[in-house]
Amino acid sequence: MSTARPTIYDVARRAGVSKSLVSLVLRGSDRVSAASRTAVEAAIQDLGYRPSRAATDLAAGRTKLVAVLIDDYANPWFVELLRGLGQVLDPEGYRLTVVDSASAGHGLDPVEGLLSMRADGVVLACDVPARLAEAAASPIVIAGTRAETVDGADASALDAVANDDRTGARLAAEHLVGLGHRRIGHLAAGSGAARARAESFVAAARSTGADVIATDYSGPATEAAGLHSALKLLTEHPDITAVFAANDMMAIGALGAARDLGIDVPAELSIVGYDNTPLARTHLIGLTTVDDSGFGVGREAARLLLARLAGGDAENVTRTLQPSLVVRGTTAPARRS
Amino acid sequence: MSTARPTIYDVARRAGVSKSLVSLVLRGSDRVSAASRTAVEAAIQDLGYRPSRAATDLAAGRTKLVAVLIDDYANPWFVELLRGLGQVLDPEGYRLTVVDSASAGHGLDPVEGLLSMRADGVVLACDVPARLAEAAASPIVIAGTRAETVDGADASALDAVANDDRTGARLAAEHLVGLGHRRIGHLAAGSGAARARAESFVAAARSTGADVIATDYSGPATEAAGLHSALKLLTEHPDITAVFAANDMMAIGALGAARDLGIDVPAELSIVGYDNTPLARTHLIGLTTVDDSGFGVGREAARLLLARLAGGDAENVTRTLQPSLVVRGTTAPARRS
Repeated sequence: MSTARPTIYDVARRAGVSKSLVSLVLRGSDRVSAASRTAVEAAIQDLGYRPSRAATDLAAGRTKLVAVLIDDYANPWFVELLRGLGQVLDPEGYRLTVVDSASAGHGLDPVEGLLSMRADGVVLACDVPARLAEAAASPIVIAGTRAETVDGADASALDAVANDDRTGARLAAEHLVGLGHRRIGHLAAGSGAARARAESFVAAARSTGADVIATDYSGPATEAAGLHSALKLLTEHPDITAVFAANDMMAIGALGAARDLGIDVPAELSIVGYDNTPLARTHLIGLTTVDDSGFGVGREAARLLLARLAGGDAENVTRTLQPSLVVRGTTAPARRS
Repeated sequence: MSTARPTIYDVARRAGVSKSLVSLVLRGSDRVSAASRTAVEAAIQDLGYRPSRAATDLAAGRTKLVAVLIDDYANPWFVELLRGLGQVLDPEGYRLTVVDSASAGHGLDPVEGLLSMRADGVVLACDVPARLAEAAASPIVIAGTRAETVDGADASALDAVANDDRTGARLAAEHLVGLGHRRIGHLAAGSGAARARAESFVAAARSTGADVIATDYSGPATEAAGLHSALKLLTEHPDITAVFAANDMMAIGALGAARDLGIDVPAELSIVGYDNTPLARTHLIGLTTVDDSGFGVGREAARLLLARLAGGDAENVTRTLQPSLVVRGTTAPARRS
C-alpha cells in the first residue's frame, strides 16, 4: 500500500536498519553507532521524511499537553469537565491527559507524576495535594471546590474555577422542602466540595424548620460509602422521607440501600445527588441531581490556563459558576404521615 | 512551618526573585537575565535545594511515564486494567496517565498526543489507531481484543494481551440457554471486541437450537446505544426472553429500555453484559456479566512493557486470559410460555 507520506518503516527499510534504531536516532540517543546514524539520516533526507507535529513541538520545548489530576476514575463527574477543557484547548492544539492520585505511583507525590510528563499546564480536579508548590513550573488551575492542604502548598496563590457548591446544596434543600419533606437525611463525605455542600444543605433545610440528620462519614464519596451510610441512616431513622447525598455516586449507593430495605423511590423516599454525572443521566437511574456546570468550569479553567501560558502574570483569579437543579425520577412529594 | 527539605519558595526568597523565575531557571529557559540566573543558582547552592525525583528522571531522559489510550471515560471498564497495570508498574517507579481518543485533539492522530508526552511506554486500550507505526519510538502493548486498522499500522507487530472474548461470549450463551431461554436478542456494536463477542455468542447459542436475533448497530457501545437498540429489538420481537449486550454500558441501556416497556428484569427478561465494570458491581444495578479479567490483563500488559523497556527485542507475544461469568440479579430461568 503506498501512501503519500513516508513512515518510519520506510526510513528503516531504506537505511537497512530496524525501526527501533530509527526511533533511537530520532530521539538523539547515544546508543547508536556513527555508521547507523549516518545511514538513517541519509534515508530521512532521501525520502523527505518529516517528523510528526508532536516531534516538532517537542523540539521547540513545548509538549502542548495539559494534565488533569483527578481522584477516582470510577466517578465520572470529570467527563463533562474534560469536554469543556477540550472545547477551548483543542483549537489551540493542546491535548489532555488524565492522572488519578492513585496512579501517580505508590508513595509518590502525584504532582511529581505531573511534572514528569512535562505538561505545559495542569488542572487540579481533586483536593490540592501537598507539595503542590514544587510543581509550579507549569501554570496550574484548580477546578472545583477544593480543600487546601498545608505542608508548603498555597492553593490561594492559584487560579481557580468552581461551581458554587453552597448554592447547589441550597437548591437541593429548597427542592426537598418544597416537596413537603420535613425529616431529611444527608450522606456526608470528606472532600472539600462535600463539606461545603453539607454545611450549606444542613443550614438551608434547618432554616425552614425541617429536621436534618447528617451522617458523620468523612472518607471518599464512593458508591459503597453511599450504600453503607444509607443502610445505617435509613435503618436507624425509618421516618426519613428524603436524602441528599454528597455526590451522585453516593446517591446511587443510597438507591441500592433503599431497594434492599424495600423502600420505594420516589414514592416513599426521595433521593438527590450532586454532579449530574453521565450515570445520573442514564435512562435506568434517572437521578434528580445538582448540575455542577462541569462543562462551563472546564471552559473557564482552560481560558485561565491559556492566559497564563500566554505569559499573563496578573493577580490570581477565582471564578464561580452557578449550578442548577435537574429534576428527574428520584424525587416526589412527601407522603402525608 | 519549617521542613527539612528546602522548597522552590525558599530558593525564591533567598534569591530575592519570584517563584516563577526560579522555575524558568530550573527549566533552562533563555528568558532569564544572567544576573537573575546567578542569584538563583547561588540560592540553590546555599540551601542545598534538590530538584524532585521527577526532575532527576527528566534529566536522565526518562519520563517514567506509561500512557494508556482509551475510547471513552464514561465507560469505566478500564478502571480494573489501570489497577492491574499499577500493581506491576508502581513498584518500578512508573506512573500511569490516560488519554482518550477524543481528548487527543480535534483532527489530530491520538498517537501524536501520546508521543508529545514522551511516555516511556504505551498501552493501547482501544481499537488500534491509524499511523500507529509512527509512535513506535516507545514500546507499545495492546490491551484487549482490537480491530486492526490499516493505513500503515501493523498491530500484529506488537505485544498484545486480551481476555478471550470468544470464550466469554460462549459462557454468556451457555448461561442463558442453560436457564431455558430459546429466543435471545443480542445488542451488537462496532469495536473489534464487540464483533468477536457477537460472532461467538450467535454461533454458540444457535448451535443449541436457540433462536438469536442480533441488531445491526455498528457504532460505539454506549448506554444510549443500548437503550435505543433494546427499545427497537424488544418492541419488534416481544417474544425475546433474554438479551446479551456487547458490554455493560449497553446492558445498562437495555435495563432502562425494559423498565420503559414495563418488562420485569429478571422475571420476564434476563440481561447479560460484558466487562464486569464498577457499574455492574454496584448494589443498585447488580448486573450478570462476563468478567474480562481487566486486572490480570493489566498486570500482563505491564510485564510485557517492562520486558521491552529492559531492552528485550524478542518475538512479539500475544497472551490470552480466561474470562469468567459473574451471575448477579439480572438473569433468571425463562418462564414457560
